[in-house]
Amino acid sequence: MSNKNITPGIPDNEFIRGKVPMTKEEIRTLSIAKLRLQPGDHFLDIGAGTGSVSIEAALLLPEQTVYAVEHNSEAVSLIVQNCEKFGVNNIKVIAGKAPEALSDVPEANKVFIGGSSGNLPAILEWITAQAKADLTIVVNAITLETLMTAQSWFSDLEDFETELSQVAVTRFEAVGRYSMMKPLTPVFILVARKK
Amino acid sequence: MSNKNITPGIPDNEFIRGKVPMTKEEIRTLSIAKLRLQPGDHFLDIGAGTGSVSIEAALLLPEQTVYAVEHNSEAVSLIVQNCEKFGVNNIKVIAGKAPEALSDVPEANKVFIGGSSGNLPAILEWITAQAKADLTIVVNAITLETLMTAQSWFSDLEDFETELSQVAVTRFEAVGRYSMMKPLTPVFILVARKK
Amino acid sequence: MSNKNITPGIPDNEFIRGKVPMTKEEIRTLSIAKLRLQPGDHFLDIGAGTGSVSIEAALLLPEQTVYAVEHNSEAVSLIVQNCEKFGVNNIKVIAGKAPEALSDVPEANKVFIGGSSGNLPAILEWITAQAKADLTIVVNAITLETLMTAQSWFSDLEDFETELSQVAVTRFEAVGRYSMMKPLTPVFILVARKK
Amino acid sequence: MSNKNITPGIPDNEFIRGKVPMTKEEIRTLSIAKLRLQPGDHFLDIGAGTGSVSIEAALLLPEQTVYAVEHNSEAVSLIVQNCEKFGVNNIKVIAGKAPEALSDVPEANKVFIGGSSGNLPAILEWITAQAKADLTIVVNAITLETLMTAQSWFSDLEDFETELSQVAVTRFEAVGRYSMMKPLTPVFILVARKK
Repeated sequence: MSNKNITPGIPDNEFIRGKVPMTKEEIRTLSIAKLRLQPGDHFLDIGAGTGSVSIEAALLLPEQTVYAVEHNSEAVSLIVQNCEKFGVNNIKVIAGKAPEALSDVPEANKVFIGGSSGNLPAILEWITAQAKADLTIVVNAITLETLMTAQSWFSDLEDFETELSQVAVTRFEAVGRYSMMKPLTPVFILVARKK
Repeated sequence: MSNKNITPGIPDNEFIRGKVPMTKEEIRTLSIAKLRLQPGDHFLDIGAGTGSVSIEAALLLPEQTVYAVEHNSEAVSLIVQNCEKFGVNNIKVIAGKAPEALSDVPEANKVFIGGSSGNLPAILEWITAQAKADLTIVVNAITLETLMTAQSWFSDLEDFETELSQVAVTRFEAVGRYSMMKPLTPVFILVARKK
Repeated sequence: MSNKNITPGIPDNEFIRGKVPMTKEEIRTLSIAKLRLQPGDHFLDIGAGTGSVSIEAALLLPEQTVYAVEHNSEAVSLIVQNCEKFGVNNIKVIAGKAPEALSDVPEANKVFIGGSSGNLPAILEWITAQAKADLTIVVNAITLETLMTAQSWFSDLEDFETELSQVAVTRFEAVGRYSMMKPLTPVFILVARKK
Repeated sequence: MSNKNITPGIPDNEFIRGKVPMTKEEIRTLSIAKLRLQPGDHFLDIGAGTGSVSIEAALLLPEQTVYAVEHNSEAVSLIVQNCEKFGVNNIKVIAGKAPEALSDVPEANKVFIGGSSGNLPAILEWITAQAKADLTIVVNAITLETLMTAQSWFSDLEDFETELSQVAVTRFEAVGRYSMMKPLTPVFILVARKK
C-alpha cells in the first residue's frame, strides 16, 4: 500500500490490529499535530501498540529513523506487519519495556507516549532529563491516574510549559439505513514543551 | 513568522482574528487531515473566515495556489493580514459569495466548506457537479440545519461515499492555580469522497 | 427490592437486562426530569425495552397506571420481571407495536419515546393528534435519522415548542488500580411541549 | 411561582442569577438524583451560589430544613430572592465559609459540594468525619485540581465507595432559523457513599 498523503490520518481499519489497543485516527492525527513535526526531527513512540503512530510519523519523516518501543510481543509483530503493509522501512522497533529499553535509543526531540504499562513516572523522568532544546512530549491518557501522574510531573518542572485538552469523538456508523452514534473513548492529550 | 511544521495545527492565538469566526486548531487539523492532501492538489476553501484553513493548506501545498472564497469584507481583510503574517503568498482570495463567486475558480479536488451563509445546497450542487475523480469535500457544521442539508444532499448522490463524525474538544485553561475546563463548540465533520 | 427514593436514577445494573437495549441511568433521569412529572400525570412509555423508564415513572407516580408499549417479546418478559423485582404493580404492559398498539391506551399527557422501530412519524402523528393541554413528549435519539424525523415533525407544528440537547456521559470504571473512561452512547434528547 | 413537579429540573432561566455561577439544570438534576434523596433526609448544600440546588432539594423535601452555606454576599442575597420567587421557606442560609460555617449546621446525610473556594480538603475532612451510616456526598468539579483533590481524598478512605462520571451537555439554541450547538462546561460528578 502506498501512501502519498502529506498529512497524518490513516483510517483505523487500514492497520492490521489483532487485539492490541490502537491510537484511533483522530487522536493520532491530533497527537502528531501537537508534536509539530519538522524535517530532521527525532521521533520516539513509547508504547507503540500496533505501530499506527510510528507509521504515520515515519511516512511524514522519510529521511529519519523513527523509534518504536513496545514490550508486548504480539504488538511487536503487528508493528512489523504494518511496516510491511505500508512500505515503511524507517522504523526501528525496540522490543522491551520503557524506560529500560530506552537506553538503546538515541536522544529524541519529539516523543509520543501512548502507553506506559504503569511506568509513566520513570519514563517521564528519563525523557525530561534529556537536554534537547525543543523537546516536546505528548501523552495520551484514558485513565485518571495516568492524567494525574503526567500532570503533576510537569507541574513540578519549571522548564516545561504544558497544554491539556480532552477530545471526544463520536462516529456515526451505518446500521441498516440508520447513522448511529458510536463514541470513541475520550482521550486526554497532554502536551509538554521545553521552554 | 516562519512555519516549518510539516503538519497542520497552528495555535488559534497566532492568527489575527477580529470578530470573525475561526475554525479552531483541532477541528482545522482534523478537517484538513480528512481531505488527505497530496502534492498537486487543488484546494478550495469556501467561507474562509480568518483564512486559518487556507493558510494551513497553503503551507502544506507550497507549489499550488489555494483559493479562499469569502464575502465578509472584514474577513477578507483578515485573510490578507494573516497571509502576510505567515509569509504565505500562494492564496488567491476571492471576495464574494459562493456559489456565484466560484465561477472564477479553477476546478478543485479538495474542498473545505467552513461556512455557507445559507447557500449550502447551491454550493454543494455547484461542487458536486464537477467531475474530478478524486473530489473530496469536508463540511463543518455547528447547526443541525447545516448538518441535515449536507447529509441529505450526499445521501441522494450515488457516486459519493460519506463519513460523519462529531468532535468535542475541551481545553483545560489556567485560571489562577486551577486548570478549568472550557469546551469548544462541538463540530460535525462530514466528509464526502467521490467513489 | 424496595425503593424509597423520591427522585429517578436507579443504577443500570439493578435492572434485569438480557440483550435488550436500556435507557441508561443518566439519560433516564434527565428524560424523566424533562417531562416534569406532576401528581395525576398519565405516563406512556413507547418502546419500553427493559422497562427501566416505566419503572422509574411508576415509582414516582404510585397512584397512577403507567403504560408501557413494547413489541419485542423478550423485552416484554423483562419488563414483567423488573416490575416484580422492584415491587411495582402499577405498570400496564401493552405487547405490540406503536402506533397500532396505542389504540388500547388511554390518552397520556407525558410521553417518552425510547424506541420506535422505524415508525416514528406514525407514532408522532398519533400522539400529537391528541388534545391534552399539557402534553409533553420526550424523544431519545441515538441515530441521525431519528433526530431528523422528530425535529422536522415538530418544526412543522405551531402548537408545540421544542428543546433539543445532546448528552454525553463518560463513566470512569475501575480496571485494576486505574479509573478508565468508558463513554456511554451520546443521546439527543428532544422535548416537545404543547404551548 | 408554584412548582408542583415531583422531580428536579427547574430551567436555568427561572432562577434570578446575577453574575454568580449556577449549577446548570442537567447537572443539578443528575447531582441530586445521585444523592438518592429519601423522605427525612438532611440536605446540606456547600457553596450554594444562586441556591438552585438548595431550592430543588427544598421542594423535594418540604418537611425538612435544607442548609445552604455560601460566603459570597451577592450570592446569599440571590438565594434569599430565589427562595421568595419559588415560595420556598425551608432553606436556612448560612452566610459564611465552609468548613468554619458548618459548625452551626446539624449533621447532614446528603451533602452537595458545588463550590469550595479552595477549601475542599478541609471541607471533606469535616464532612467525612461525621458518622451518619448513609452519608452520601456529591462533588461537582470543573477543574482538574478539584477533581484530583476529591478523588484522592476518597481513595484514601476505606469506608466510602465512589462513582465518577463526566457529563457533557450540548444545547441546541435557536439563532435565527438555525439550531446552533452551545456546549455547557463539562462537569465531573464524583459520588461518595458511606459503605
